[in-house]
Amino acid sequence: MSAADIDFPTAGRFVGREHRFPVRVYFEDTDFSGVVYHANYLRFMERARSDMLRVAGIDQRAAFDGAEGVYAVADLSIQYKRPAHFDDALLIISTVDQLRAAACIIQQRIWRGDDLIADARVTAAFITPEGRPRRQPAAWVEAFTRLLPNQTL
Amino acid sequence: MSAADIDFPTAGRFVGREHRFPVRVYFEDTDFSGVVYHANYLRFMERARSDMLRVAGIDQRAAFDGAEGVYAVADLSIQYKRPAHFDDALLIISTVDQLRAAACIIQQRIWRGDDLIADARVTAAFITPEGRPRRQPAAWVEAFTRLLPNQTL
Amino acid sequence: MSAADIDFPTAGRFVGREHRFPVRVYFEDTDFSGVVYHANYLRFMERARSDMLRVAGIDQRAAFDGAEGVYAVADLSIQYKRPAHFDDALLIISTVDQLRAAACIIQQRIWRGDDLIADARVTAAFITPEGRPRRQPAAWVEAFTRLLPNQTL
Amino acid sequence: MSAADIDFPTAGRFVGREHRFPVRVYFEDTDFSGVVYHANYLRFMERARSDMLRVAGIDQRAAFDGAEGVYAVADLSIQYKRPAHFDDALLIISTVDQLRAAACIIQQRIWRGDDLIADARVTAAFITPEGRPRRQPAAWVEAFTRLLPNQTL
Repeated sequence: MSAADIDFPTAGRFVGREHRFPVRVYFEDTDFSGVVYHANYLRFMERARSDMLRVAGIDQRAAFDGAEGVYAVADLSIQYKRPAHFDDALLIISTVDQLRAAACIIQQRIWRGDDLIADARVTAAFITPEGRPRRQPAAWVEAFTRLLPNQTL
Repeated sequence: MSAADIDFPTAGRFVGREHRFPVRVYFEDTDFSGVVYHANYLRFMERARSDMLRVAGIDQRAAFDGAEGVYAVADLSIQYKRPAHFDDALLIISTVDQLRAAACIIQQRIWRGDDLIADARVTAAFITPEGRPRRQPAAWVEAFTRLLPNQTL
Repeated sequence: MSAADIDFPTAGRFVGREHRFPVRVYFEDTDFSGVVYHANYLRFMERARSDMLRVAGIDQRAAFDGAEGVYAVADLSIQYKRPAHFDDALLIISTVDQLRAAACIIQQRIWRGDDLIADARVTAAFITPEGRPRRQPAAWVEAFTRLLPNQTL
Repeated sequence: MSAADIDFPTAGRFVGREHRFPVRVYFEDTDFSGVVYHANYLRFMERARSDMLRVAGIDQRAAFDGAEGVYAVADLSIQYKRPAHFDDALLIISTVDQLRAAACIIQQRIWRGDDLIADARVTAAFITPEGRPRRQPAAWVEAFTRLLPNQTL
């Protein structure tokens, strides 16, 4: 790892089909009850999804700038298992669960060591700049297909 | 309405068993794709829940300061139906769906006029300062019971 | 005030040249140290500025949608005087301090009753969609001029 | 770097007296105008300050849990020089500018490559759990002193 890499944000990494993404809990993430505010786990998970796509070779920004489309969360469910606290080092493990023409379903678990903090399932729909569902770009479908559970690595 | 009231934040109001709470969409709520960022609807809904409790006579801050306990979201599911945009005036309608000893389940729908923006179901668990489930205070159970669907108004 | 108004978000009001805007402190606004997180006062102040413009007759959304331009904060200083807590009812008082061709300087004070919570000065620059400074629309300059300290009401 | 380290969040690093901390811009950080929302740079800077302390050997969480005290921002000024966008890789460079008994002043600059995005000066005051100013722990003063500009490295 060069000096330049050290000054560059991590995008996490794949271990098999699992994307692993570390997150630190800062002041901004907590609330006065002493734990991470429930909506902020969704921010952590979106960071992990964006970087899972990045590492899989998908360039969301180019697709948006080229007016092709953008992902929007269409459906989300999350169970909060244990609270996380200021200063905790968390790991978000994301896997592609299902692939549809215009959407993909991603499972995301948030861990602190061996403790499961939260368990979520997110449907991300690909939409046009006008907000209509659109088929995901062929190269993206190919990238996702390699990450599906029924595929041989 | 006196001058003082005008300078005071609204807590919404009950119409029958429905708590109605208005929210304006500001810069902070949107993202570069042009619509409200998905996690921010959870912030809107929490404001509505806190003020639903306030109007129902439940003082969350006193319970926290007295080390009785605090609500924590244990489970949440949300479907995003239509995007909301900067400057939109939204209305959050919350109803108590179910009451348990140490939790209550609240249904929350976000509307822009007649358009349903999001539809969510939230389980809020009452927990001790140490994070263990605790029975909700008797007065709160009574307040919630009056809001249950099978009750006569 | 009609039933419809009650379900509509407030935009605050002018008392003379002062725009007064109420804010409630929710879970999302605080951090584990027990008080409002410092960056969140900037969110409160932006809500107040957006609604000050709205009440003054300035339509930011139409200007953005029409590709005329949008305000961006160019400079900000803030002194934090006292902490605010969960459940506090705050009042943000904003005044136009200075008007330039492509920017306006707004003073914003956050109060809890007679306690000054924070005191800030914000320079908002009007910029094109490409990010270059642009003269503010003539009608807006007129609206701001009426709010300047050296003007007769 | 071991596999475990890869799954661990970075805390940045010191190069001389400068703490360098990388940040990626995600959906959550932007607003509908297409750029990073101005208040979110304060969140980035607080992450950098927290990790600057961590790398300098200061344990904020232990001090808070032990009821010694916690830092609170007392004064902040920031100039926004250029907008940052979704997907940008930023670098926050923080230096200790001045040290007082109960506060330290930190200069923070946000860079995207050679472009200066924002330039800020933050006074962080050490306060008791009741919110009163308190002398910073001796070991912390020592750690900060090594980082002051007039010190020999």
